[in-house]
Amino acid sequence: MLRVRRVGICGTDLHIFQGHLDQRVPRGGIIGHETFAEVVEAPGEGGFRPGDRVVVEPVQFCGKCRACLMGASYLCYQLKVLGVDLPGGMREYWAVGVDRLLKVPDSLSDDHAALIEPLAVATHDVRRAAVKAGDAALVFGGGPIGTLIALVARQYGARVVVSEVNPFRIEMLQKLGLQTVGPGTDLVSFVNDWTNGEGADVVFEVTGNPAAVARMTDVVRVWGTVSVVAIHSEPMPVNLYNMFARELTMHGSRLYAREDWVEAIRLAASGAVPVAPLVSKRIPLAELQQGMELALGGGAVMKVLVDPTA
Amino acid sequence: MLRVRRVGICGTDLHIFQGHLDQRVPRGGIIGHETFAEVVEAPGEGGFRPGDRVVVEPVQFCGKCRACLMGASYLCYQLKVLGVDLPGGMREYWAVGVDRLLKVPDSLSDDHAALIEPLAVATHDVRRAAVKAGDAALVFGGGPIGTLIALVARQYGARVVVSEVNPFRIEMLQKLGLQTVGPGTDLVSFVNDWTNGEGADVVFEVTGNPAAVARMTDVVRVWGTVSVVAIHSEPMPVNLYNMFARELTMHGSRLYAREDWVEAIRLAASGAVPVAPLVSKRIPLAELQQGMELALGGGAVMKVLVDPTA
Repeated sequence: MLRVRRVGICGTDLHIFQGHLDQRVPRGGIIGHETFAEVVEAPGEGGFRPGDRVVVEPVQFCGKCRACLMGASYLCYQLKVLGVDLPGGMREYWAVGVDRLLKVPDSLSDDHAALIEPLAVATHDVRRAAVKAGDAALVFGGGPIGTLIALVARQYGARVVVSEVNPFRIEMLQKLGLQTVGPGTDLVSFVNDWTNGEGADVVFEVTGNPAAVARMTDVVRVWGTVSVVAIHSEPMPVNLYNMFARELTMHGSRLYAREDWVEAIRLAASGAVPVAPLVSKRIPLAELQQGMELALGGGAVMKVLVDPTA
Repeated sequence: MLRVRRVGICGTDLHIFQGHLDQRVPRGGIIGHETFAEVVEAPGEGGFRPGDRVVVEPVQFCGKCRACLMGASYLCYQLKVLGVDLPGGMREYWAVGVDRLLKVPDSLSDDHAALIEPLAVATHDVRRAAVKAGDAALVFGGGPIGTLIALVARQYGARVVVSEVNPFRIEMLQKLGLQTVGPGTDLVSFVNDWTNGEGADVVFEVTGNPAAVARMTDVVRVWGTVSVVAIHSEPMPVNLYNMFARELTMHGSRLYAREDWVEAIRLAASGAVPVAPLVSKRIPLAELQQGMELALGGGAVMKVLVDPTA
């Protein structure tokens, strides 16, 4: 049994809040998939003890389908996400199987531990895109996931630029030492200047915005990579001629393998990826509605954390 | 010096014929990039002698740019294609550097040797998509390139289905022993039945048609591959949610490395890939206009070859 200490509000939660995922989320379901908790009761042989500080890997897979058999259990054909398809962490006490738990070190504060789930996403995205030291990586969108992608890519040695329009986010990115490119700049010229006319090695699409999709293939080098991280609920016009002419590779990047969680904990606990600036506000569970509205509003906000013990 | 014996008319030539590539093709330029020829004069140390039967790899690259340095010289930032940007093979005599020539064995007829260039394209496409024995590969479009992709993929052990609407091409594909799926069939249901609900391992988009682009991501398995071979001159709506949810990989596939030519010659000369059924007609150079119109008309035609010696 867990006592939940922090749950992050994610873009997916905002989609749920607006009814976009009614087909997946049962009425009266409990959301929350970015969970930090404390173990209050545990089976003797599970490897966990009361008092352990843990995060929850919120996926449940069948173990038998083609995806599971090829090692992509997080893409299981029967995948259930805790906090979406099944009850999640927005509550004070939660019974979760020990195989879904990872310990976090004491060097990680409660707030920062709540960011391990989005950091595992970002770590997966950067690793799946095979970002190498020295690469020029362009991130479209400096929200929580885009910022974490930029920070992980930088930690892995890439030269990173984030394309963002929100002034609050631009300021935060710059405080984190990240280079930004704003709405007043011609992106193709910028990238050409930056990369000696070659194009970026890797581009991450983390906006969900058609304007970014229209532009993303224009700024990638021959044999370069476009990673689609954002959720696009409608088909989007993509420049397939660029895909063809430069033999680009585009891939989707969704959740995470267990190793991405282990690496995310290492990156956050060591301080290599500074997650603190992403926490905008902490609220009690009773104020979830207002927290959702705050996060939805855009503007001067990144991550809102819920504290069910408050 | 070469005496040109056969030149295939390619889809790119039809684009040129219609004026779509006026920015690249100089007025009075000589088209033709699928060339089989006989050496009539050669430098002493070039490795070629009069009488040698050769095909021409019609690309010219700078050797210094990022693409060339990474081994993608066929994607050179300064790439020139002989028969598009520079004079090509639609003539009786042609001076070509020996580094652009590959010998073909006598077991390949003149007509079949003229198909080595498109077969090198198809070989590149199949190898770039990393098709493995046992894979379920779906090819959208059974024109010359789509058919050659299907034949190479089959030779490499894949289970292949070609989606095609033209009755003449369907008949030819079936004569080649290839399974086809026609316009009357629901493709998603078909692929689900074929692949136990998992989706195809690899899909090749060789139609240039928006309907195929709209459908292509629907029929691919988790971690599967979409290869964009066709030229799409306009941005096309792509289902990026499928890309994301199943972590698909889409890549463009354009020309060929030298090894793709070597492999294409091996595949054709050994009979492993039967290219004969693709030759629809042979015409003299003086009838090029009519040959273009025939190829453009669609219907009962695959490959039209020009014989400048006729």
